[in-house]
Amino acid sequence: MNQLFFERQKKASMRLAEDGIFAAVIKDAEGSRNSSLRYLTGHPQDALLFIFADSDTILLPWDLNLANEKAGCSSIIPYTDYNRNYFQAAEAVLSKKITRNSRISRDSSGAAENDKLKIEVSASSSWLDVNTLRKKLPDMEIICRDNGIDAFLSSSRKIKDNSELQLYTKAAEITDNVINELEEYLQKNIFRDEKRVTEADIAMKIERLARDCNAEGTGFETIAASGGRSWAIHPWPAYSSSQVTGSGLTIIDFGIRYKGYTTDVTLTAAGKNLSDKQKEMIQLVQNAAELAEKELKPGISAGQPAQAVNIFFKSHGYAMPHSLGHGIGLDVHEAPLLKNDSENTAILEPGMVLAVEPGLYDPDAGGVRLENDFIITSSGCTRITSSRIIFPEY
Amino acid sequence: MNQLFFERQKKASMRLAEDGIFAAVIKDAEGSRNSSLRYLTGHPQDALLFIFADSDTILLPWDLNLANEKAGCSSIIPYTDYNRNYFQAAEAVLSKKITRNSRISRDSSGAAENDKLKIEVSASSSWLDVNTLRKKLPDMEIICRDNGIDAFLSSSRKIKDNSELQLYTKAAEITDNVINELEEYLQKNIFRDEKRVTEADIAMKIERLARDCNAEGTGFETIAASGGRSWAIHPWPAYSSSQVTGSGLTIIDFGIRYKGYTTDVTLTAAGKNLSDKQKEMIQLVQNAAELAEKELKPGISAGQPAQAVNIFFKSHGYAMPHSLGHGIGLDVHEAPLLKNDSENTAILEPGMVLAVEPGLYDPDAGGVRLENDFIITSSGCTRITSSRIIFPEY
Repeated sequence: MNQLFFERQKKASMRLAEDGIFAAVIKDAEGSRNSSLRYLTGHPQDALLFIFADSDTILLPWDLNLANEKAGCSSIIPYTDYNRNYFQAAEAVLSKKITRNSRISRDSSGAAENDKLKIEVSASSSWLDVNTLRKKLPDMEIICRDNGIDAFLSSSRKIKDNSELQLYTKAAEITDNVINELEEYLQKNIFRDEKRVTEADIAMKIERLARDCNAEGTGFETIAASGGRSWAIHPWPAYSSSQVTGSGLTIIDFGIRYKGYTTDVTLTAAGKNLSDKQKEMIQLVQNAAELAEKELKPGISAGQPAQAVNIFFKSHGYAMPHSLGHGIGLDVHEAPLLKNDSENTAILEPGMVLAVEPGLYDPDAGGVRLENDFIITSSGCTRITSSRIIFPEY
Repeated sequence: MNQLFFERQKKASMRLAEDGIFAAVIKDAEGSRNSSLRYLTGHPQDALLFIFADSDTILLPWDLNLANEKAGCSSIIPYTDYNRNYFQAAEAVLSKKITRNSRISRDSSGAAENDKLKIEVSASSSWLDVNTLRKKLPDMEIICRDNGIDAFLSSSRKIKDNSELQLYTKAAEITDNVINELEEYLQKNIFRDEKRVTEADIAMKIERLARDCNAEGTGFETIAASGGRSWAIHPWPAYSSSQVTGSGLTIIDFGIRYKGYTTDVTLTAAGKNLSDKQKEMIQLVQNAAELAEKELKPGISAGQPAQAVNIFFKSHGYAMPHSLGHGIGLDVHEAPLLKNDSENTAILEPGMVLAVEPGLYDPDAGGVRLENDFIITSSGCTRITSSRIIFPEY
């Protein structure tokens, strides 16, 4: 087994043992993704994972061949053995484990002889699933906690280890390649030759560049929003067949996914003949990006950089309608959230990888957003991507 | 308000009134999509929808401008008014509604004076969300049912109305265009010129063709799996930078989304120099597709066509490792499921739109799948797409 996955699973098992929990069940399926599956085992998706307090782990994948190639865990059982039915699988796997090894298992989870064994399910589990499990497994205590195994995994995942930081170095390198190629493409086709280029052309270009650079693909649906609709934070659809012209403000927001880990960057293409307002917004967003970069360091509240940027924008009569940024990793939105909010108690720590995205939006002028990714270091931060505002060279 | 959305909302309200429920809350957000939001209002995503038994509906969208353009409902309130917080929004909207109109509302939901008003949340609601709502709204009874409003909406959605069938006619037309263009592309580049074409090239080609034909895009992540990996039902990654050669079996599975509704088709490119086994698998899948088409008619069990195909494959020593098909609509997988299973009680009805996808897979020979979409009519079925096995013409 891959040592890395073994260590991650071991830590999760220890946490369960500390909490007196016999086993936790992690489920990843269409409509309810859970990237902790990949974090813990390397298996990318569509599986059940049982983690036991005694350090045993059992994976039930849809795709057995994929699991044999990718997954690290104590044992693998085809999910099809249980008709790919969550309840049937949970009942069978848990009962078998209890029967086989009840004495040791009970001891490892610290359960007294007459207590029901505690089984934890993901914090995102549905109401109906939890109730069904409770009915099917009346001899066990099914629990679902917002401060349980998922919170523990989220907390582990927010600090990237060396192997993850190495993957980010590579992901960022590919991202920068894509940014460079994209700039060349925009300069040539939009600003110089004034060809008919659509938002879809740009999105497809990024998708292709990603794969040409041996990335898994993009990390989320690329946003390409040209002049008429760049005022939206999350334009819908994310990209259309509208033409991107050499004037106005075009926002391009994408991520490159490398071995599971995604970057998240945004560049703004600033067209010709900008209005004073558009020029001011660009300048403010660039200044805000610099300001944020200076603020990022370990030990401070995750809300502090956001507060600094908000105050800066406010002093110029503007307001940013979204948070300053967020952690990135196997998910594009991970802890911590860079939001200036009294409920935000997160502290920046070395090893966090953050996307920082100051932006301003105006229904008439359009939108400007500049987003780059940073690693928090022991003394400050390292910017790992080079997104920028692209001005016409022609 | 668009009459169609008004009628759909009205039916949902009547259902709530019949069940003695004061209001239902539909939530669509990143990580928990619910296409019934779009079905009921036209608003594509990221919003809360409150449906009241008295026929009032309130939408809380993230993107107010988008809602103003797309949504049909009684009223729209910016979700940002409640800090985009589900619980805060639910508490405020429900309390306001009760205060404003308690007598009428109570009457319409049939609640006695001292009963707690019943609020239904989506069947997919998380355990933690339901518990938090119960704590925040102690004066209301929060319920979550698998046979409640979601089951009602799923049941409504599985029978497409005339406007939806018209959209499907258009979606299928675009799909067929894409299939034709794709065949030309494969014939020319892979079979004739033997150029270096990757799975990603094919996926990108489809994405671009979709948008060139004014579709919203593809309906789900395109699968392009060439020889070495076409044995997988859901290959991971869905497409890679592997080359697609003129030999072996390549599976291409995609959908075209038009105004929300997606098709779902699969074609197999059958290369040169096929083995006898590969030829046999192709022939069997083609025969199974014809067999399934003959079976599809209203009034029969949704398991019956699947059973017929399974028996056919079995008589030739093969087995299909997945169900025969499924409903399509705003989601790529909707009711009914064409699966031969004692628990499957679904009956085919006119207006259902189904994807039917017989397939056979072999670790050595690769996979063959042929998938087309059908509308169940009053007397049988109409095939609306023309996917096929593509053989080399060169």
